[in-house]
Amino acid sequence: MDAGHVNVPESHRDLLERPLFAHLATVRPDGGPQSSVMWFVWDGARIRMTHTKSRQKFRNFAAEPRVALSIADPEDQYRFLEIRGVVEKIEDDDAEASFYKSLQHRYGMDYPIRDAAERVVVTIRPHTFVAVVGGGITARVAG
Amino acid sequence: MDAGHVNVPESHRDLLERPLFAHLATVRPDGGPQSSVMWFVWDGARIRMTHTKSRQKFRNFAAEPRVALSIADPEDQYRFLEIRGVVEKIEDDDAEASFYKSLQHRYGMDYPIRDAAERVVVTIRPHTFVAVVGGGITARVAG
Repeated sequence: MDAGHVNVPESHRDLLERPLFAHLATVRPDGGPQSSVMWFVWDGARIRMTHTKSRQKFRNFAAEPRVALSIADPEDQYRFLEIRGVVEKIEDDDAEASFYKSLQHRYGMDYPIRDAAERVVVTIRPHTFVAVVGGGITARVAG
Repeated sequence: MDAGHVNVPESHRDLLERPLFAHLATVRPDGGPQSSVMWFVWDGARIRMTHTKSRQKFRNFAAEPRVALSIADPEDQYRFLEIRGVVEKIEDDDAEASFYKSLQHRYGMDYPIRDAAERVVVTIRPHTFVAVVGGGITARVAG
């Protein structure tokens, strides 16, 4: 465990491990928020997402690295996890967009990648987890 | 239609009309975002949500009225609607929390309300709709 590691509440860990959809909140350069539905993968300490260099969210990350995500259980959307964190790094994907491909595979959606040169890997370090069941907070863990 | 009315893309109007779950992005007083799963109702021009006066999001609305929402189709989460708008007003619910009750009914979750005195109705005026199908933007409507 590295410094600053925050454990996800055990009751909600499955929401990070399953190939679910994260709603990602970012702050635009004008200070207003934006919300997008995104693929992600969790390695036990970091959330990673694929993105392209040309889109608004990429500019948002650069201007304001603080982000938030919410992930709901599709079988019971009253059980969800809120995550707050910071974009720790943004790196180019490799020439084959291997990270993007691994995400496609995780979500069962393999298709040809036409924008590999534009693809980046966005790494988010969570610092706060809020676990909700039935509309009520059951755990809050902050680093 | 009032001034500033923005029409939701017809292809995605059902996502506002069905009792789905909206992921609401707000900006905290420190400038970082927050993302929460919320009930809502749409009247053709405004989104309304119930909230309590005591929670963080209520303080967020007061400090920064700009919000964003994303609503995905639970049957096809690659079809979703992004909404950006402004909190136009926050009013006390009535003594019986009638608005909250109407939302409970919409979501098929009638239960006793114990915090009626704390309940407010949050009215959001959308100014931008972004409709997404299969990961690609199919319509963008801005007021």
